[in-house]
Amino acid sequence: MTAPAHDAKSPRFSEEIEVAGHIIDSLILPKILDEIMMLGGRYKIDDIQIGQERDDPSRARLQVMADSSAQLQKILASISRHGAVPIDDRDCVLVAADMDGAFPEGFYCTTNQETEVRLDGEWMQLELPEMDCGLRVDVASRTVTTVPMTDVKQGEMIVIGHQGVRVEPQEPDRSEHDAFSFMNSTVSSEKPKGVTLREIAAEMRKAKAGNGRILIVAGPAVVHTGSRDHLSKLIQAGYVNVLFAGNALATHDMEQSLFGTSLGVSMAEGRSTEGGHEHHLRTINRIRRLGGIKQAVHAGVITSGIMYECVQQNVPFVLCGSIRDDGPLPDVITDALESQRVMRQHVPGITFCLMVATTLHSIAVGNILPARVKVVCVDINPATVTKLGDRGTFQTVGLVTDVEPFFRVLVQELGLL
Amino acid sequence: MTAPAHDAKSPRFSEEIEVAGHIIDSLILPKILDEIMMLGGRYKIDDIQIGQERDDPSRARLQVMADSSAQLQKILASISRHGAVPIDDRDCVLVAADMDGAFPEGFYCTTNQETEVRLDGEWMQLELPEMDCGLRVDVASRTVTTVPMTDVKQGEMIVIGHQGVRVEPQEPDRSEHDAFSFMNSTVSSEKPKGVTLREIAAEMRKAKAGNGRILIVAGPAVVHTGSRDHLSKLIQAGYVNVLFAGNALATHDMEQSLFGTSLGVSMAEGRSTEGGHEHHLRTINRIRRLGGIKQAVHAGVITSGIMYECVQQNVPFVLCGSIRDDGPLPDVITDALESQRVMRQHVPGITFCLMVATTLHSIAVGNILPARVKVVCVDINPATVTKLGDRGTFQTVGLVTDVEPFFRVLVQELGLL
Amino acid sequence: MTAPAHDAKSPRFSEEIEVAGHIIDSLILPKILDEIMMLGGRYKIDDIQIGQERDDPSRARLQVMADSSAQLQKILASISRHGAVPIDDRDCVLVAADMDGAFPEGFYCTTNQETEVRLDGEWMQLELPEMDCGLRVDVASRTVTTVPMTDVKQGEMIVIGHQGVRVEPQEPDRSEHDAFSFMNSTVSSEKPKGVTLREIAAEMRKAKAGNGRILIVAGPAVVHTGSRDHLSKLIQAGYVNVLFAGNALATHDMEQSLFGTSLGVSMAEGRSTEGGHEHHLRTINRIRRLGGIKQAVHAGVITSGIMYECVQQNVPFVLCGSIRDDGPLPDVITDALESQRVMRQHVPGITFCLMVATTLHSIAVGNILPARVKVVCVDINPATVTKLGDRGTFQTVGLVTDVEPFFRVLVQELGLL
Amino acid sequence: MTAPAHDAKSPRFSEEIEVAGHIIDSLILPKILDEIMMLGGRYKIDDIQIGQERDDPSRARLQVMADSSAQLQKILASISRHGAVPIDDRDCVLVAADMDGAFPEGFYCTTNQETEVRLDGEWMQLELPEMDCGLRVDVASRTVTTVPMTDVKQGEMIVIGHQGVRVEPQEPDRSEHDAFSFMNSTVSSEKPKGVTLREIAAEMRKAKAGNGRILIVAGPAVVHTGSRDHLSKLIQAGYVNVLFAGNALATHDMEQSLFGTSLGVSMAEGRSTEGGHEHHLRTINRIRRLGGIKQAVHAGVITSGIMYECVQQNVPFVLCGSIRDDGPLPDVITDALESQRVMRQHVPGITFCLMVATTLHSIAVGNILPARVKVVCVDINPATVTKLGDRGTFQTVGLVTDVEPFFRVLVQELGLL
Repeated sequence: MTAPAHDAKSPRFSEEIEVAGHIIDSLILPKILDEIMMLGGRYKIDDIQIGQERDDPSRARLQVMADSSAQLQKILASISRHGAVPIDDRDCVLVAADMDGAFPEGFYCTTNQETEVRLDGEWMQLELPEMDCGLRVDVASRTVTTVPMTDVKQGEMIVIGHQGVRVEPQEPDRSEHDAFSFMNSTVSSEKPKGVTLREIAAEMRKAKAGNGRILIVAGPAVVHTGSRDHLSKLIQAGYVNVLFAGNALATHDMEQSLFGTSLGVSMAEGRSTEGGHEHHLRTINRIRRLGGIKQAVHAGVITSGIMYECVQQNVPFVLCGSIRDDGPLPDVITDALESQRVMRQHVPGITFCLMVATTLHSIAVGNILPARVKVVCVDINPATVTKLGDRGTFQTVGLVTDVEPFFRVLVQELGLL
Repeated sequence: MTAPAHDAKSPRFSEEIEVAGHIIDSLILPKILDEIMMLGGRYKIDDIQIGQERDDPSRARLQVMADSSAQLQKILASISRHGAVPIDDRDCVLVAADMDGAFPEGFYCTTNQETEVRLDGEWMQLELPEMDCGLRVDVASRTVTTVPMTDVKQGEMIVIGHQGVRVEPQEPDRSEHDAFSFMNSTVSSEKPKGVTLREIAAEMRKAKAGNGRILIVAGPAVVHTGSRDHLSKLIQAGYVNVLFAGNALATHDMEQSLFGTSLGVSMAEGRSTEGGHEHHLRTINRIRRLGGIKQAVHAGVITSGIMYECVQQNVPFVLCGSIRDDGPLPDVITDALESQRVMRQHVPGITFCLMVATTLHSIAVGNILPARVKVVCVDINPATVTKLGDRGTFQTVGLVTDVEPFFRVLVQELGLL
Repeated sequence: MTAPAHDAKSPRFSEEIEVAGHIIDSLILPKILDEIMMLGGRYKIDDIQIGQERDDPSRARLQVMADSSAQLQKILASISRHGAVPIDDRDCVLVAADMDGAFPEGFYCTTNQETEVRLDGEWMQLELPEMDCGLRVDVASRTVTTVPMTDVKQGEMIVIGHQGVRVEPQEPDRSEHDAFSFMNSTVSSEKPKGVTLREIAAEMRKAKAGNGRILIVAGPAVVHTGSRDHLSKLIQAGYVNVLFAGNALATHDMEQSLFGTSLGVSMAEGRSTEGGHEHHLRTINRIRRLGGIKQAVHAGVITSGIMYECVQQNVPFVLCGSIRDDGPLPDVITDALESQRVMRQHVPGITFCLMVATTLHSIAVGNILPARVKVVCVDINPATVTKLGDRGTFQTVGLVTDVEPFFRVLVQELGLL
Repeated sequence: MTAPAHDAKSPRFSEEIEVAGHIIDSLILPKILDEIMMLGGRYKIDDIQIGQERDDPSRARLQVMADSSAQLQKILASISRHGAVPIDDRDCVLVAADMDGAFPEGFYCTTNQETEVRLDGEWMQLELPEMDCGLRVDVASRTVTTVPMTDVKQGEMIVIGHQGVRVEPQEPDRSEHDAFSFMNSTVSSEKPKGVTLREIAAEMRKAKAGNGRILIVAGPAVVHTGSRDHLSKLIQAGYVNVLFAGNALATHDMEQSLFGTSLGVSMAEGRSTEGGHEHHLRTINRIRRLGGIKQAVHAGVITSGIMYECVQQNVPFVLCGSIRDDGPLPDVITDALESQRVMRQHVPGITFCLMVATTLHSIAVGNILPARVKVVCVDINPATVTKLGDRGTFQTVGLVTDVEPFFRVLVQELGLL
């Protein structure tokens, strides 16, 4: 047996890859080169064609080299997120799940970007990208879907490794000069926000006029800050297609219906009412006695507010439970996995998502949205706003501002005042 | 029909109440007077005896007046939290629950303070106070317990209104000069913290030496910040009797075992590892394949860290799920109500609780702890620290500091280095 | 010579003190008792008369005991801040300053509360209280004034110790139900703010209509956030009597006049303009070339904005320098002591002060305002809002909100839109 | 009169520029292209040579086009910051200052990067770059220096426009794998900080061993948090060459010497001492009576702490005043411009700068440091840490952590415990 015929300079573990698009001005190529080096690899640029004019795409072909197969796979996995694909494409590798509720080792881990999988030489488009899932291929029907770990069934075919998978990173649309062309940006508290607000209103109008669907994710501070009427107006006017929230938002919204307070604070006077700290419990108890929110609205017990408008306008709402919930309301889904499943059912078709004053729900929703959905995250706390972007929800525009005035101006911009 | 025989000055709706203790220097009397007025009532002080010397208790007797029965009840409810009780005591009022999962209207809403209920002229002590529950009385066995709304069964006897219920507010122990004598205080980032840390260590030593039990509630930043070894040492040395956490803490702890990273950040170098963002998913998947944390430890797959020490030292852990969880691990309880139930089972006997770097779990745990448990909440974000106190967990001492150095010094103070 | 005729139980160092007012419901008495004990003293309550009805004042007389004269003086000093005064009043003690620029040791250190000094058996009122100064008495003219350390001249008579000085703490006016009856309170970001905003507008209207004077202290974020037109309108409409700010506010205000940007960010588009980071320097340079702000307005170079309106409406402005200033503008007072002196000249007559988005200037102004001036501090950062109260500016109402919407709503409330 | 002989496609206003270095993986080229477009210009890439291997530099030559001369100048100014220089170099343009204290219009505005100015065909190196100044050329001696606006004297030759000026942006040293190779990065509160701390210690050791000089900029929280002894040890051990601070740090440091408190809080017990709020004033007064800090140390009044060690070790300190200062101490420079001048005198030779718990001083110092100085900014508030980077102090490594443990570990790392 002889030693492998390669010298130290041209390692055995290498792959020719290609990347195209606005790779220079979108910083894609530099990022790829950077990652190769960070991961201990080397590269050789074989060919590069840079678009001469602004709108010409560029194209680069390079050889990626590593010291081991494992390292090479790691590098390819990493750079594939930026659309860098091996030139000699091969089909994806499929392995049957050997048990329920877990992937085979080495499973391909999804991003929320547009993704294609190669089967029998043909590229299949993934309908609804979702991050941190696996890819399940139905060979018979030639379809590929994401599958969360817990939903894997024994025998399903799961993609292994990065071979035969390509990802097209969301490119900012530079032709439109809107906030969304600057993905993952944050409008700090020290910047003028008027423009961003106008753009949010424009997005919402566009969605309503066309085929778009708007998802609102809202925390209880929406009620505490006195923004309930604003959000109710948005729902009434048809600017909300789905509402995701928790037990607290719905409870305090109805607490205001029944007691005029939110967490015991009078909305009219801005002061704590003594005994008011019990109002939310009494609210939940009353709704439980009636059987649920819809029943309470139909019984004429709840006559205004966010939940009332949802019921009246047939806007579906998903209330997800958490361990800090009091009660909860009968409508709350207390199981976290079931909550995720129900939220997922509402994702198809969503084009715009507004997250207001909630960390837990924003991150949960960010986890299941495709990167193509435009997301605006509004919070007075900069930490909340930046957290989403940190967790891979790259398409988020953050807005550090006060919730009530935000809604007030949004309602004005939409002509609802 | 004649008008009610009372003039405007001496309203029909009044009640003689009494309050005793360190009501002047604990600010209890002023608060009571203040609340009466805030709620639109009036008062007449009939008798006041102020302790002449520092340790003499004081005693006040006053008449509370209101314009309606409802208002009077509201006032009595409010001031009863400060130990102000009607002088002619009457038995509590009991009503049978008319349905599962909800209280009768007018139910007494609990605090986390020591509480007694009067039945047949006799005061019964509530074993384990918990806030925002109802009081369930078993007349036959003469016992009173708190019951969460969802656990109510039709036919159970529930206390209605404030009659026959008295609350003894936790009084700071002024004789000991420790941090805990200043309840609900916060040590800001600009104050020296050495003293508070020594007192925490002293509390933990006391609990370990005696009959105390220590509960640790920890968020994933414990692992991210590199505090894993410190917490592991505390568990190993017997300073942790129960651990409450979420999917993330356990996952990143074991991610560090398997990959040396936490959320993909190398713990040795403090840098992101490329591909590292997948480590936590691969960790969860591997543990799912093995059946759970205990199995992973016994299989020799997890050989160090927080969860490892819990398993080795037989320290029970409760992992509560949330909608933003990936996976989750098989040990995670995904139902919020079930999570609360399991946590409640571990509360009896807890004397000291340390909450570190978690908002969601801290609030959830704060909701179920009696006020007599000493609680320290540590977070680098002042907002998290103050949030607990705002929500009625009055016994909390907040410490605004960085997690890793906090644990490092705590471990040093306990002589574990 | 014989030993003093006192046993250990009745120490030689004691003083009979009296305190009156709403000492129970304003928590004054409890605080006094608390401080006595904290400082190691003891007390005996000789007499207490508690107002029977809500509006009756209470009155307490107690004996304060200590182990040394120094300790007793310390206790008396501490509780005198709450209006607790020795019953047998004595004249103040005066010592001539032995050098320029420093007090004699043992000088009385002022608070910002209403203060009286006893000279020849008669109480003289301090015109303009200011904290952290000394008290200078002109015996001939029988006047007392505060004097900052640096302004002391050799030979001036300075009050030593607490004898003959009494302080009347600002009592919240409980009859009016406004935000200002809750001194040193903070309206958090999670509370409704509409009520507070209406009260601020009411205060400003009252000041304008009557003899009040309004001071605005503003940081550059007022311009950055796009609030320049709002503040300009307030000035134009006569709602601003004095403006305190720094180099940055004036510079960025005029930058917007000249370039349409603030710190290089386009106010119309909310985006950074390249080269825009130089705009503020070019602005300062241009104003320096013209000789100052007034000259620039008169020359027609600056035609709109905050500084323009100040010049047009003859509203005096004080621009105080700091070490991080670029330039600065010729109008900026670069010496800190001179800045303080000029600000002090504008304090008499001020009844209402609005501090927006500035920490440095807010604290500096808080240091020189009497406690009787109503202060509202607006910032999106809760830390800034709470900092003022921590530093003894007790009369502050804090408002955690976004600057631009705050001004927008304020202008609307005042009917200026 | 005839129309200009150029068609719309090839605008008259264009310039051939060149840029070289690691322009791809340092993201320099993409940024340049981006800025050209943002400013409304166009470009044509004439030639690009990308280094084939990791360490080969790349080189690009492109034509920049604009619609007006002003726009072209703006673009060239903008991209010159990234080292993009016109190919046919011309000498700088000099104009004599027409007045004291202001530049001629159109002055070149400096960055803190390494800068060269072309005079008579020869490039002269700027010794000490400082941002936001002008460039003053002494033609006779052929030297170029930065000059702040206020220091300009009539007749001095000032550089106008960008012609003949080139800037070499600081390139991260990728060969060393330290924190400083990731410029303008921030280590968040949720990341492990051990590595960064070791690197800071290594930098300080290197500076002390070689020709480096270490500047410490410290706020009063250093004393409040109990870090005084740590910093004192660093000074004693020779790890501090200059100290910049304000009145508060020096005052509270000496307050601790005299009273054992900082802002009235006992350092031993962590509690407020009543009357303690006067301690800092009494401290300042005492030092004023003695004539200054050195005198107080020599008189044996101050016997420990930060200022004591500075005096003992002959470490120069610069105390800059601000309008919120009490007193101040006699050593405080109250004039802002004079403060800046004195700080500037200490900048030459500084190689490492540690800024701890101060916003005002950090920004002021950041303004005068060359980009080549390594800066670490430590604060528990993330906002402070990010503010410096936002203001152009690009070389800053931010560390979000608690001050006292930071110093404690640093002292340990340096072997001083």
